[in-house]
This record gives sequence, structure tokens and C-alpha cells, in this order.
Amino acid sequence: MTDQIPDIVIGRLPIYLRALRLLAQDENKITTSSHELGRRLGISSAQIRKDLSHFGEFGKQGTGYHINYLIEQLRQILHLSQEWDVALVGAGYLGHAIANYNGFQDRGFRIALLFDNDPDKIGQKTNNLVVQDVTELEETIQKHQTKMAIIVVPAQVAQGITDRLVKAGVQSILSYAPIYLIVPSHVRVSYSDPVIQMQQMAYYLTPQNT
Amino acid sequence: MTDQIPDIVIGRLPIYLRALRLLAQDENKITTSSHELGRRLGISSAQIRKDLSHFGEFGKQGTGYHINYLIEQLRQILHLSQEWDVALVGAGYLGHAIANYNGFQDRGFRIALLFDNDPDKIGQKTNNLVVQDVTELEETIQKHQTKMAIIVVPAQVAQGITDRLVKAGVQSILSYAPIYLIVPSHVRVSYSDPVIQMQQMAYYLTPQNT
Repeated sequence: MTDQIPDIVIGRLPIYLRALRLLAQDENKITTSSHELGRRLGISSAQIRKDLSHFGEFGKQGTGYHINYLIEQLRQILHLSQEWDVALVGAGYLGHAIANYNGFQDRGFRIALLFDNDPDKIGQKTNNLVVQDVTELEETIQKHQTKMAIIVVPAQVAQGITDRLVKAGVQSILSYAPIYLIVPSHVRVSYSDPVIQMQQMAYYLTPQNT
Repeated sequence: MTDQIPDIVIGRLPIYLRALRLLAQDENKITTSSHELGRRLGISSAQIRKDLSHFGEFGKQGTGYHINYLIEQLRQILHLSQEWDVALVGAGYLGHAIANYNGFQDRGFRIALLFDNDPDKIGQKTNNLVVQDVTELEETIQKHQTKMAIIVVPAQVAQGITDRLVKAGVQSILSYAPIYLIVPSHVRVSYSDPVIQMQQMAYYLTPQNT
């Protein structure tokens, strides 16, 4: 059954989860409704109810959703009841920012391995992670059975690193490299490129005389 | 006419632009085809031709696209012939990484202003940018007529900063804060949250016993 759920529905579940956690933790709320969630997310309440109905019946007419219960259910659906080890490749400015990002905590992930090819960086420590030599990538990832990776490397080497990660068993890659990556069908890649996002928005701005 | 072009089409243009630049700069290619572009982007050639046809006739049957010409056309369509000044709010690890990111160069943007509320950071310099006191946000942005901003602040203050940016005239915001932002209809927000992307991919992994 879960095989048939559209990617776009799966894509929204983490957004619901994030909003529910804010409601519970920052506002100490116990229950919420699809209307309240929708208002806070710019998503229609009907869409939220429809998305959640793929996985069961979580709310009650009149009382709405019990927030902590729905959080637990979403965590189970998204396989976040366990903490996933993540290999981070690239220890530049952005790599350091990611290694030190505290937003991974309690959200299902832990940066467990950090690689770079710069002799000056190898052996250095950041946030209790020792930068390892990228030549040890395959061996270390296989040993740790790491399934997820984040790559923060130049475009020119991103495909090569990706091929090595995939060969070592990685199945999910978040890439900050500004290039489309070719992977086998069992591997998922998600991209982050701030310039692409800025360029998409620039279209809607009125050009200025500079 | 341009008013009717779907957001999703606009969303793909920067991806075409990025691929074309790689072809021209890294591979010294002069021409390309919708097939070659499609192969490199995991997008069908028909989709690429259809997207571009919204804006005119850029390719020739048989010879394909002249890369530099198409790059120039896409830059004009996306309003990237000018360089947009960007205000960056938040000078933590990630803010520093963004301030020092060289991927903005030649792609239409320049981090022109940098703000933080930490007295230890205000007055410090990074990549030729002086960290300014966030209390001066509105005044400085109005003076510079800055239309774009990137916010790298905690969720708890993100809406407040957004409201102030909008009041000062900002119309496009790229947010790294893990929260949905409410803005007037003339303002666009784009989000970047690595955890959301990782959680979306975790769904497709087989849970492990840990």
C-alpha cells in the first residue's frame, strides 16, 4: 500500500512534522486541527487531511489531532524512530556549518563521518568529528553501513564522489554541489543550491537600472 | 504573456542555465541539443523544448542551441543581466558560509549587507563585509533599496525579521529558518532546510535495527 503514495505527499509529511513540533515544544499545545496546521503552512486543510488519510485515521471529528501522537506516527512513517548516521563529504565553510548545525538533533540524523581531501584539514576536529581522508571513504562507509550522505564538494568532483558513495552502499544523498548527479534507480538525490532558488525568485522582481 | 507562464516552468530555467554554463565553461562546447541537456538533467527533451518555447524560438532544427546565446536569453528572462544586491541576516556558521560562498559570482547576486544581533559579531569583517547591527536593518535596506534577502536566524525570530525586511521593501526572501513564513502576496519566500530534505529521503530507506 505505501508503495503507491505519491512522492509529493511524502514530501509534505516532514513539513507537517516540523510544524507539529513547533506547536508542541514552543507553544505547549496538546491538540491541533487541519485548519490550524493549514493556516500555519499555507496549505489547505483538505490537502492535509487527504495526505494524512493515506496512512490511517489520526484525528477525531471535533477534537482534531493529538499532537504528540501524530508526531510519533509521522516519525514512524518516515523511518525517523531510529537515528540515521550521515556521512558528510567536504569540510569547507559550508561543510563546517553543516557539521555544527544543531537542527539535526532529535530530527532523525547524526553527522557521524566527515571527509575531506585537504591535508591541512584531515585530522582536524569540529563538533567532535575528526576530518578523515577521503581516500578512506569507501572502506569507512562500508564498515559503518552508512546509508545517507551529504556532499559539499565542487561541481567538478561531485559525480565521482557520488559514484564512490553509491558503490559503498549509500542510498540517499543530499547534494550542495551545483550539478545534476546520475545515480542508479535505488538511490535518491536531493539538491540544495541557493543560487537556483534566488534565480527563480529574481524572475518575479522588476529589473532595476544599475 | 509572461504573466501566464507557470511557476514550475520558471523553476526549471535556472537549472537549464546552470547546465548550459557547465557545458560552455567546463567543456568548451559551442552548441547543444534538448537531448543532450535532457540527459544531463534527467528531464525529457520534449519538456525542455516546451519550456523554452514559452519565451521564443532559441534552437534550430539540426544544429540545436547556440549555448552562449541561450545563456544570454535565459539571463534576460530571469532578470539576471543585472546583479542583485542581497541582504544576509545572521552571521553564524551558516551565515559565514553563505557570505563566503563564491557560487553567487557571475550568477546574478552579490551579498551586499550582513546583519547580526550579537555584539561580539557586529563590526567584524568577513569576505569584505562588515557585520552591521540588526537594529539598523530597515534604515540600511531602505537606503540601499535592497530587494532580496537571505535569512539564517532561529525559527523563533524568523517571522519578526521577515516582517521588518518586507516593511523595508524586500520582495524575495530565501529562508534557512525551519519555519513557514507569512508574507504579503507581492513577496516570495523560498525555503532551505536540509533536515526536511533528509526526512523526505529517509522514507525510502529500509529501517535498520540500531
